Amino acid sequence: MAKGVEWALHTLLNLDMIGGGPAGSAQLAAAHDLSASYLNKQLQQLTRAGLLSSVPGPRGGFRLAKPLEDITLLDVVEAIEGTARAFNCTEIRSCGRIGALSPPPTGTCAVNAAMRRAEQAWHQALAAQTLAEIRAELVSIPQTRHVVRSAFD
Amino acid sequence: MAKGVEWALHTLLNLDMIGGGPAGSAQLAAAHDLSASYLNKQLQQLTRAGLLSSVPGPRGGFRLAKPLEDITLLDVVEAIEGTARAFNCTEIRSCGRIGALSPPPTGTCAVNAAMRRAEQAWHQALAAQTLAEIRAELVSIPQTRHVVRSAFD
Repeated sequence: MAKGVEWALHTLLNLDMIGGGPAGSAQLAAAHDLSASYLNKQLQQLTRAGLLSSVPGPRGGFRLAKPLEDITLLDVVEAIEGTARAFNCTEIRSCGRIGALSPPPTGTCAVNAAMRRAEQAWHQALAAQTLAEIRAELVSIPQTRHVVRSAFD
Repeated sequence: MAKGVEWALHTLLNLDMIGGGPAGSAQLAAAHDLSASYLNKQLQQLTRAGLLSSVPGPRGGFRLAKPLEDITLLDVVEAIEGTARAFNCTEIRSCGRIGALSPPPTGTCAVNAAMRRAEQAWHQALAAQTLAEIRAELVSIPQTRHVVRSAFD
């Protein structure tokens, strides 16, 4: 998983702490000393996924497009990483000597189905956690909101 | 996830179908028209992980080191992919303007903890499925064992 997922999650949480934005990519990057040009790619991906909206103009930037209650970990992972599966079945059951001797396969390969079941458990666990729940953990540390707001002043 | 996981899973199942082995890497590769040199790397990794044993000599090769009942999907994924987590926390909470203004962090970052919970669900689902269960699905298709044995004759 690319580091962009970590950057995107913290950036969405920071935007919420400062009231939703807008904030520019340079300012969002400086909050954690990130590469502004690389972060900007993630900000564009989050915008395309409908998690951020882009505000034009000199005081513009990116703002949250929805409340953190409506953003799950899966939303962020899929916005940054895409929806391709981690396990990619290439149907080797139909190749080589075994493939030549086998009847035409019907249905999903049992190996693929088992790997898919496990990956679905991962996705369900990502979809079951919202960024609002992570925010609740973060703000249980005193001064968290104040620190983030000061960093954006 | 590298295609080596798919190759390794099918190869372990094929070895079981032919009675456990030994079979050479060229023969195991020909079963699905795979690259023998690349498959050989996976066979070495499976051996290091204790899932295969290496049998020396002209009639040697690789054989199953344990029954499929004792091999989970997680065993195979970790043998091939290693045990590094998919989400890699780089502690950006301690970097940049926010890091400079924050008290020294204690405990796991809430973002990391949430991503780790989801990944644990994935690993648990991988660990809950044995290759014996996949074999049971495969042999429900008529002739499966016969086809695999013929391919190794």
